Amino acid sequence: MQGYIPGEQPRDWSVIKLNTNENPYPPSPAVIEAIQAALQQGLQRYPDPLATQFREAAGELLGFNPDWILCGNGSDDVLTIITRTFVRPGGIVRFAYPGYLLYETLAEIQGARVDRVFFREDWTLGPEFAQDLPGLCLVFLANPNSPSGTVIPPEQVAEWAAALPCPIVVDEAYADFATCNCLELVRKFDNVLVVRSLSKSYALAGLRFGFVVAQPHLIEQLRKVKDSYNCDALSIAGATAAIRDQDWFWQTRAKILRTRDRLTGEMRELGFSVAESQANFTWNVHPEVPARQLYEYLKSRNIFIRYMNFPGWGDGVRITVGTDEQIDTCVAEIKKLLEGRLKHS
Amino acid sequence: MQGYIPGEQPRDWSVIKLNTNENPYPPSPAVIEAIQAALQQGLQRYPDPLATQFREAAGELLGFNPDWILCGNGSDDVLTIITRTFVRPGGIVRFAYPGYLLYETLAEIQGARVDRVFFREDWTLGPEFAQDLPGLCLVFLANPNSPSGTVIPPEQVAEWAAALPCPIVVDEAYADFATCNCLELVRKFDNVLVVRSLSKSYALAGLRFGFVVAQPHLIEQLRKVKDSYNCDALSIAGATAAIRDQDWFWQTRAKILRTRDRLTGEMRELGFSVAESQANFTWNVHPEVPARQLYEYLKSRNIFIRYMNFPGWGDGVRITVGTDEQIDTCVAEIKKLLEGRLKHS
Repeated sequence: MQGYIPGEQPRDWSVIKLNTNENPYPPSPAVIEAIQAALQQGLQRYPDPLATQFREAAGELLGFNPDWILCGNGSDDVLTIITRTFVRPGGIVRFAYPGYLLYETLAEIQGARVDRVFFREDWTLGPEFAQDLPGLCLVFLANPNSPSGTVIPPEQVAEWAAALPCPIVVDEAYADFATCNCLELVRKFDNVLVVRSLSKSYALAGLRFGFVVAQPHLIEQLRKVKDSYNCDALSIAGATAAIRDQDWFWQTRAKILRTRDRLTGEMRELGFSVAESQANFTWNVHPEVPARQLYEYLKSRNIFIRYMNFPGWGDGVRITVGTDEQIDTCVAEIKKLLEGRLKHS
Repeated sequence: MQGYIPGEQPRDWSVIKLNTNENPYPPSPAVIEAIQAALQQGLQRYPDPLATQFREAAGELLGFNPDWILCGNGSDDVLTIITRTFVRPGGIVRFAYPGYLLYETLAEIQGARVDRVFFREDWTLGPEFAQDLPGLCLVFLANPNSPSGTVIPPEQVAEWAAALPCPIVVDEAYADFATCNCLELVRKFDNVLVVRSLSKSYALAGLRFGFVVAQPHLIEQLRKVKDSYNCDALSIAGATAAIRDQDWFWQTRAKILRTRDRLTGEMRELGFSVAESQANFTWNVHPEVPARQLYEYLKSRNIFIRYMNFPGWGDGVRITVGTDEQIDTCVAEIKKLLEGRLKHS
């Protein structure tokens, strides 16, 4: 088994880093203050095993009782807990492809088989995504999807949830950047789990905090599997402050959406095919320039984007929406590469 | 499945909390400074997936190359990763009993069977602990053990490691309080994994940081299973500062050891049988006073100790070594209870 390979994390903060969908803006100042206050209180005691203050704040914001929420050490921890709870060895885990590669790794570690359902060319999924299958025990849907950034409408997900014989995880790590989400399905369907992350939209990738919203009977099962103290005292304090500062969230989000639309337009002008993203990144394929070459070229200029190759599907580059300045620099370099190629051809 | 039930975590900092083996003293001031500095650097980027700066500092301190070390979100995370790496469903996980109950929970979640080896009356283990068994895939030994605080000498563990056909995890969460440890066995045996925690001896239970030392071929397997970003940026900074401040560590440790010896002596004077602890807690059984009654009585006085009942073995109370003042208050209350009983009998 190879394990999941995360994007490069150069420790040098001077590079332009557009490869792991981090927020280019800092978190709310209230986050820093809350962490300072928690630091003053001391670190020698164990944290609250259930991160109650976060669940109360998130519950109030989203309209759910806190016992519909379970927190994790990043949404990867939540996805791991869900897999360990519902997937038996030899069972089948379904996910859409190309998508978040971690689902496959988690299934493998659990000794399960996988059922990849390929996206169509337009990033929609056929009815086989909701088909019953002997042994099927869990379905993952990243929505918005990565690397495409595209969204499956909640109405479609609702149909699948009704048809599926097992839990379906809607991984909404990027939903804060989208125009719709599947949170309301949780009330109606006892097999829908919606997973959220504070890494991207709340600029807290370094803090590790995510959560899942689902009906209490599912949350109760997950609680038995999670590590007792899976969220630390500082991340609970910081995450709670983050979701309480909705002004900061909406301001940051607006900036990122504006830059995303500009990036999409400019890349299309340069001849790239760019999927219609509702996330904080875009997926770009050029009819002539090999994606790997583009990635290597930019890396040599200290600009990190993500080269992704999906066997059986093809490759491309995923570009995180950075600041306007970062995106200008990145696009200007891509232009240079294209012009250079033109000259030589 | 019931899941692991951690000790009570009252949020009220005014209670005397001697139930989950936290350090009564704060962490080194250098920890707070390091976290402040990391906060200044920002939280929007992902942390180093391998916590390299910690591995370098710990490697230097302990005399191992950093590629012999893997870090986790508390040592529970490390134990979870180890279980998911080595335990196949239907396989057998062995541990000593009474011991840390999490091992059994981890085995159950993994769909494995368990082989409990009972401690003898004097907290030693018989040769069956190292016996081969078809399907045996992992052995856990908490050393010092909880709830007893007793230690199995490294020479004995070495014999078992040589005899066992599978990895043996020496869980040294409390070894910093002991006079010996099994770290050197890692160099000699390719099936020994030594797990450490910063929760107790470094007073960082709230921060969640632990690690494992083992030969690189084992570490490599664990890396594939762990979540990519399992340690957050603040905990990496804090944990690194903590192990670099060895003066603070030794001073705190000395205070705790002095108080532990005093607690042991005073409880024995009160008629308790107290195991010979090399940890930051003691295990206490009274020939007449029921352990649960003692626990309830102290709780009503805002003193939390841990009542533990091990079916097939018996019950008792585990008392964390707090400050001298906390222990004085606790022992004085226990005296009162005993005197009250005497009057009524």
